[in-house]
Amino acid sequence: MIELDRFSFQDMKRIAIQGELGSFHDIAAHEYFKGEQLQIICCETFEDVFHSVDNDPTVIAMMAIENTIAGSLLHNYELLRMSGTTVVGEHKLHIQHCICCLPDDDWDTVNEVHSHPVALMQCRNFLTAHSSLKAVEAEDTAGAAQYIAEHQLHGQAAICSSAAAKMYGMKILEDSIEDNKHNFTRFLVACNPQKASFVRRLEESDKASLVFSLPHQEGSLSKILTILSFYDINLTKIQSLPIIGHEWEYLFYVDVTYDNLTRYRQSIDAITPLVKGIKILGEYKEAK
Amino acid sequence: MIELDRFSFQDMKRIAIQGELGSFHDIAAHEYFKGEQLQIICCETFEDVFHSVDNDPTVIAMMAIENTIAGSLLHNYELLRMSGTTVVGEHKLHIQHCICCLPDDDWDTVNEVHSHPVALMQCRNFLTAHSSLKAVEAEDTAGAAQYIAEHQLHGQAAICSSAAAKMYGMKILEDSIEDNKHNFTRFLVACNPQKASFVRRLEESDKASLVFSLPHQEGSLSKILTILSFYDINLTKIQSLPIIGHEWEYLFYVDVTYDNLTRYRQSIDAITPLVKGIKILGEYKEAK
Repeated sequence: MIELDRFSFQDMKRIAIQGELGSFHDIAAHEYFKGEQLQIICCETFEDVFHSVDNDPTVIAMMAIENTIAGSLLHNYELLRMSGTTVVGEHKLHIQHCICCLPDDDWDTVNEVHSHPVALMQCRNFLTAHSSLKAVEAEDTAGAAQYIAEHQLHGQAAICSSAAAKMYGMKILEDSIEDNKHNFTRFLVACNPQKASFVRRLEESDKASLVFSLPHQEGSLSKILTILSFYDINLTKIQSLPIIGHEWEYLFYVDVTYDNLTRYRQSIDAITPLVKGIKILGEYKEAK
Repeated sequence: MIELDRFSFQDMKRIAIQGELGSFHDIAAHEYFKGEQLQIICCETFEDVFHSVDNDPTVIAMMAIENTIAGSLLHNYELLRMSGTTVVGEHKLHIQHCICCLPDDDWDTVNEVHSHPVALMQCRNFLTAHSSLKAVEAEDTAGAAQYIAEHQLHGQAAICSSAAAKMYGMKILEDSIEDNKHNFTRFLVACNPQKASFVRRLEESDKASLVFSLPHQEGSLSKILTILSFYDINLTKIQSLPIIGHEWEYLFYVDVTYDNLTRYRQSIDAITPLVKGIKILGEYKEAK
């Protein structure tokens, strides 16, 4: 039975994402698992993505965690921290938005543009320059294009990836309409810890995501970072967050990279007695 | 002339904000400068807020910098870093949103809800539970209410502060519709460095915001934090950001608190040779 389970798991990966087919999550999943057979499970919310993994331990979650423009997605960090999943990979995706409409619509016939609020924000200059277009929120970038195509909504445009526009038979009015061309989103791949070894080889890992809390005390963070440096562990990200209701305590989300898995594990053992609760969110291979 | 300038500056403060009267920026400005006569300069964008200060050195900028739900406003950090202003104060505001409409409209007659994208995101559960309401983006929370009131737009609701709803004669359908009740926004007060002494007494400062860059090298951050701890300087926030185009370098935005201004200044002198460019964004009194 175990062998069969293992086989079916490896044969066809089932990836839960927030959003529709053609969304940036879908694109990221196909880039990350290039050449593999995927079944994408489209969820309405990030909570639903984690529920999918809870309900079926063979499901893998793929979710955005930070963006060069919008910053860290704190809500997703929180969901990840509270979930029973472990991070097994990361992927970085260059985000490009296009504006698209039904094939028989055009610039002079569209008056509304629908998209996810973050995508609308990332195209603010474009929207300001096209002030006759009313910006309407949608749950998802690709979902907005799909909805317009399915319901043949003349006069409405969507902001989404050009892949999604093509997928739903929409006409691209203009591509690369995002304000900042250095718009990258980092995605994390997470799964049930029991299944982690099917998705990544731990011995090839060179990066880890940690979260720990520290009392607000002079030098407490410097001690932790000093110990990590003694063990030749590199920091690639650090972010402090106040803990709501605990005014003098902070959560630290830290990403580290390492050459030597054993050395990294020893460094975690060395800092554990000095922090108030540490959770390894996952160990994985760094994305280039 | 100088005395007259000083007098007029103290007599009536001119505060540039992003948004309209009644917006959270307006509320934050009036809470921070309680009891003082204020003239609010409403700007469309945060860029315009800094332009106001550039054009008239007596103007003071007030801008949101982070939110407990949405995280750091990276764009505003960047604007602040590139600006010639200095931070002279901070304010923390509890954010509560209401939904409001024209007095003769009601739940059964409204079908659209307009607001700033961040406000819409902060009321996501409410919007999901009221899926018949179409969420439409606006430049500003209070501006959405103002627009509906001025143009007597029946069928449209706005999400804004209850103060804005009242200011524009709107009827509050429901108050406190934000998902998370621990929704706080931190605002910074910034002005021309020449005018800083008119706004805050440096000797009363106990907090500073810094930004510096470091090469990606094992232990470089730990050295900086260790030195700060030797000088009894507390960290209240740290956030790393990759520098676009410089793959191995990071910017660190750090907030520190101190009891002794001289000691703090000495600590800055001590870390300066070890960082690659440091900028003191400002020294000010911590908000409680």
